[in-house]
Amino acid sequence: MLSIQEFIKANMSQYKKDMVSLVSIQSISAQENHREDLQKVATRAVELLREAGASAQVIQNDEFPVAFGEIKVSNDAPWVTVYNHLDVQPAGEPQWTSNPFEPVLTEEGIQARGATDDKGPMLSIVYAIKHLKETGQLPVNIQFVLETEEESGSKHFGQFLEKNNSLLHKPDSILVSDTIFDGDNPAVTFQLRGLTLGVIELKVGEAGVHSGMLGGLARNPLATLTRAIATCIDDDGGVLIPGFYDGVQEPTAAERKIIEQVAARKDFARIRADTGFSEFYTQDPREAEMRTTFSPTFELHGYEPEASGTKVSGYAKANFSMRLVAGQDVADLAGKLQEHLRKTHPGITVNIAEGSTAVKTDLDNPFMERARQAYVPAFGRPAVFVATGGTIGAFPPMQRKWPGVPIVMAAQSLMSDGYHAPNENFKWQQAERGIQTIATYLMSIGDLRTS
Amino acid sequence: MLSIQEFIKANMSQYKKDMVSLVSIQSISAQENHREDLQKVATRAVELLREAGASAQVIQNDEFPVAFGEIKVSNDAPWVTVYNHLDVQPAGEPQWTSNPFEPVLTEEGIQARGATDDKGPMLSIVYAIKHLKETGQLPVNIQFVLETEEESGSKHFGQFLEKNNSLLHKPDSILVSDTIFDGDNPAVTFQLRGLTLGVIELKVGEAGVHSGMLGGLARNPLATLTRAIATCIDDDGGVLIPGFYDGVQEPTAAERKIIEQVAARKDFARIRADTGFSEFYTQDPREAEMRTTFSPTFELHGYEPEASGTKVSGYAKANFSMRLVAGQDVADLAGKLQEHLRKTHPGITVNIAEGSTAVKTDLDNPFMERARQAYVPAFGRPAVFVATGGTIGAFPPMQRKWPGVPIVMAAQSLMSDGYHAPNENFKWQQAERGIQTIATYLMSIGDLRTS
Repeated sequence: MLSIQEFIKANMSQYKKDMVSLVSIQSISAQENHREDLQKVATRAVELLREAGASAQVIQNDEFPVAFGEIKVSNDAPWVTVYNHLDVQPAGEPQWTSNPFEPVLTEEGIQARGATDDKGPMLSIVYAIKHLKETGQLPVNIQFVLETEEESGSKHFGQFLEKNNSLLHKPDSILVSDTIFDGDNPAVTFQLRGLTLGVIELKVGEAGVHSGMLGGLARNPLATLTRAIATCIDDDGGVLIPGFYDGVQEPTAAERKIIEQVAARKDFARIRADTGFSEFYTQDPREAEMRTTFSPTFELHGYEPEASGTKVSGYAKANFSMRLVAGQDVADLAGKLQEHLRKTHPGITVNIAEGSTAVKTDLDNPFMERARQAYVPAFGRPAVFVATGGTIGAFPPMQRKWPGVPIVMAAQSLMSDGYHAPNENFKWQQAERGIQTIATYLMSIGDLRTS
Repeated sequence: MLSIQEFIKANMSQYKKDMVSLVSIQSISAQENHREDLQKVATRAVELLREAGASAQVIQNDEFPVAFGEIKVSNDAPWVTVYNHLDVQPAGEPQWTSNPFEPVLTEEGIQARGATDDKGPMLSIVYAIKHLKETGQLPVNIQFVLETEEESGSKHFGQFLEKNNSLLHKPDSILVSDTIFDGDNPAVTFQLRGLTLGVIELKVGEAGVHSGMLGGLARNPLATLTRAIATCIDDDGGVLIPGFYDGVQEPTAAERKIIEQVAARKDFARIRADTGFSEFYTQDPREAEMRTTFSPTFELHGYEPEASGTKVSGYAKANFSMRLVAGQDVADLAGKLQEHLRKTHPGITVNIAEGSTAVKTDLDNPFMERARQAYVPAFGRPAVFVATGGTIGAFPPMQRKWPGVPIVMAAQSLMSDGYHAPNENFKWQQAERGIQTIATYLMSIGDLRTS
């Protein structure tokens, strides 16, 4: 029987070809002109699932198809839902050194939009399961749910779960590979922040006015919005919206221990090198870890208009996000934000485009410890548990549908891979070790059930 | 001999055709892809000057040609420089009810970009002079200087004056028709604000970062810029930059009288109706007049990035303008702004794209009184003197070249014409009465000289 190492050695050249086929598809969910590419990537994923031994099909879900597949080994085996996503971030950044959808392959890895987020890690799971299936070692039933709206907040994913209830098995656990290592350490995420995206707006005129004719008299809505938003933030990245931190829980003793461990490994020089960002609100490692995981944020992403010139615009908008932690509610925060901004101007409105709450998996859940240990054969050490600041919009609806089912987030990506950044890439070594780790994990959970 | 009224009656249908030919040319100086249109409009203007009896030519001035023409009636006659501009504002506003460069003609007037700013008023002057020339009534020599960079700040106009020194006569007065009425009252402007355009910038990263990974830790430059700029403005449109108002002079007694007169006529309901703007920083008419004419401004026009999404941008920019009054200096204010912003963050920079100082013509200059009275025959009453909040970038270099030469700004446009706004238009009645007024004015100044 082929060992997992032999399987990987024999199959990496095919893995690379499959990666090229996946990342060449411009599956940008945020851009309407790429809807056809979402169909293409779902269709390609279904082919790959079938090659892995699954029965598979594309299930339409409004404009965001899902590649759905199933491998059933036994009526008695526990079920694992494999969730990953096939859509990608836009790739318009000028810093790309290659066409983001014409993959560049080197000895080390592959550069293309979607390589690490999330096509590479997704493909590793498919390959791991293919090996286990072919060698008769798969101890669990698998349901693949590979969706195409994650980078746009998975707004239609709850509806997918409801509409396809008859197809879906309640799983004993959910496996996801869409998070990143902690420096050089393999990592299993036990907590994600929620995400709220919204727009703050003030309109005082139907069109712009000439700043010579009426400048100084006509209210400048961009200036008023600037003043209002400035009252929401302090100079250290803290949020001044009254009540913003209400309900935020202090970390437990076990979580505090993890924060201390992660903080001890925090390497600011490396974060600078990996991201190109030079300034951080704190230099204290523990505080930095708290801010990116256990603390909520309020971030500004852009204003409208972008215009230069001399016109005073009749309207102004600000695009913002909030990362939410456990105990915070989207609608509640949107209300607090609007109430606060209206102290500066009563005409300001806040509209929420999408919102999802934080997600947490119990640290002492047995699936988590098995996942942690599964990294030992390939990476030489167990994973660390980490809280992650990002968001996966599909999780809150999955938790509502399947309460108590643990979500196991097993990372394969590195921070230097460039999640949501120019020159995104995925390393072959991470893929090889990822395949082995996922196979090890799945082989270890055949006896675990969630009642 | 044809009277001016008979001339107008006989020539309005040709005037309308000429207007169509002018406003059909997309002479947008702010957009580089319209450089060829600047050549076209200058060439068309030269044809019109020749039809009026002038010797005329296009003079190149970097990318901004000048239609230059001359009518000399006598060695002994005083010289008048007619300055107007042939370029127009961009016309991308969604509120346009017609294609901005496909003129719509009605009984009342013409709708097209550039109709009132400044092609219509410019053409009225050409027609007035044509009539005076043809009937032998022109008592002054004329030099036409019709440029194509006014809407972009006339940055190359000083260089035009220097390079063409041998062609240019030092004038006894300058005539311009690029300002607007005060409500229903004809108006002669004695003061313009200066204009500074610039960009405030803060950069902390080479590219954006994922707000989930580093949100709350990585400095958000857009948030920092928001906080910094908020400290520059109060809720009433006042400017809080330390030293911003240094050197600003109180209006003289004569100016105060004019402010009171204009304030007495101020009609907020009409301004609302004409502009579509609903909010003003003050409801006090005198204060409103001060703010738009004798007070300097600091206006925000846009931010970069405009982006939505969840990325924290590595840089942020804000586009601003300042309208300057007498006693204020561009470089001095830029320095004060940067110094103040750096109290919030030392990395903030201020770059000035262009700057011009305020311009003033003495109220008791005899040309001004003749201009005021010239409105009586066509409009039934003399013009009012007004201070205007706008800026004409060519004036500071003209004042430097020809110190003491009065600039007479005789309005033909109405506020409802939509300067710099969607659905810009010019009324035929204003054109007819404008031609008569300009002819009356020129006939009245044959005896006036500036030593």
